[in-house]
Amino acid sequence: MSFRATVLTLYPEMFPGPLDLSLAGRARAAGIWSLETVQIRDFAQDRHRSVDDTPAGGGAGMVMRADALARAIDRAAAPGDERPRLLMSPRGRPLTQARVRALAAGTGALIVCGRFEGVDQRVIEARDLEEVSIGDYVLSGGEPAALVLLDAVVRLLPGVMGNETSGTEESFEGGLLEHPHYTRPPLFEGRPIPDVLTSGNHRRIAEWRRQEAERLTAERRPDLWAAYTKGETEQ
Amino acid sequence: MSFRATVLTLYPEMFPGPLDLSLAGRARAAGIWSLETVQIRDFAQDRHRSVDDTPAGGGAGMVMRADALARAIDRAAAPGDERPRLLMSPRGRPLTQARVRALAAGTGALIVCGRFEGVDQRVIEARDLEEVSIGDYVLSGGEPAALVLLDAVVRLLPGVMGNETSGTEESFEGGLLEHPHYTRPPLFEGRPIPDVLTSGNHRRIAEWRRQEAERLTAERRPDLWAAYTKGETEQ
Repeated sequence: MSFRATVLTLYPEMFPGPLDLSLAGRARAAGIWSLETVQIRDFAQDRHRSVDDTPAGGGAGMVMRADALARAIDRAAAPGDERPRLLMSPRGRPLTQARVRALAAGTGALIVCGRFEGVDQRVIEARDLEEVSIGDYVLSGGEPAALVLLDAVVRLLPGVMGNETSGTEESFEGGLLEHPHYTRPPLFEGRPIPDVLTSGNHRRIAEWRRQEAERLTAERRPDLWAAYTKGETEQ
Repeated sequence: MSFRATVLTLYPEMFPGPLDLSLAGRARAAGIWSLETVQIRDFAQDRHRSVDDTPAGGGAGMVMRADALARAIDRAAAPGDERPRLLMSPRGRPLTQARVRALAAGTGALIVCGRFEGVDQRVIEARDLEEVSIGDYVLSGGEPAALVLLDAVVRLLPGVMGNETSGTEESFEGGLLEHPHYTRPPLFEGRPIPDVLTSGNHRRIAEWRRQEAERLTAERRPDLWAAYTKGETEQ
């Protein structure tokens, strides 16, 4: 069964964009996932096809109207469509690799790309949208975030990655950042590969990698390190 | 002076991608920023043009070689090029809106898109690459992350956003998630706009919005909430 993604956006031309190439592009060509876009503006009913209006209570910017978006969602998700409905938004809960894995284990996702200052709260509640944030920064709209989310999910779909183990031995999967990597040539601008990695001693190599991963995590991510040392790492 | 972005990648066709439309596309057409891509593979010197090899010490996947990438960086950044050199990587420090603002205040950025299991540590050190992560999930490569970073930066460049205040009254800028938004129609599927927002009482509206922002932040982002209540919010 193919993973079905439906993206609701004011910029359908942004899709598939980068997802048309590389891993995700080959997987789509192979039928492992499908991507459909819905132009929210097609569901505006006034003669100006307006999808936004000024915020109730005043303030800067514009707000995406509830009515056009609700109609677009109802058209995109037939009754009985059980796919999660995500709204890409900086107000959302942060996306994690665990959430990505859960999405990849499902049948697909309906992804709403917010624009303007935000989306009318009533459609978020009435259509049970799950607000998802890809990070603590502000984008011009939800489209780049949707591309990121789909890229992360698609690479975990069965049959997408050549080497299945690549999906598990990576940053976050064990609660730590990944250790440093080295490859040929043995000497680069006078810098050698650390001796331990060419020693052939697999126990010492594993130990060195774990120590380096711990050192990096403690240095760069005190938040992850605290969870790791308390044994709270999400698995 | 225009903001100059140079992206080093194995998939130059992924750019400008979504950045060719909307705010970022108009800003590029207006000369507010420029985007150049460099194909890393063009700097491989063996006859197979290989840019990756197996990891020293064993393990799954492939590692991006130091030599081709170093040559690509040296070509892309002339001596005296003071732009920050970023490597999009899940091992990096998390991207924040403060870092985005700092980048937007500069002259540009050189952005390396990692691929495979990672990049040889020696080129990261030798070329002083700053590892930046857009979030705690794993992508097929650094390209979607670079698109996100550029989208976030470009919207803050002078002249890009019509309404200058839109850049400041948003999620994270005050250490809180943004309050809910509402707009016309007054009644949507039986759901009214909260009375306070149509009261015309600006003090009460501001107070309601602050309370809602605090409630949402405490509920969804205990990490931001803890920093906010301790007065540690980055400004």
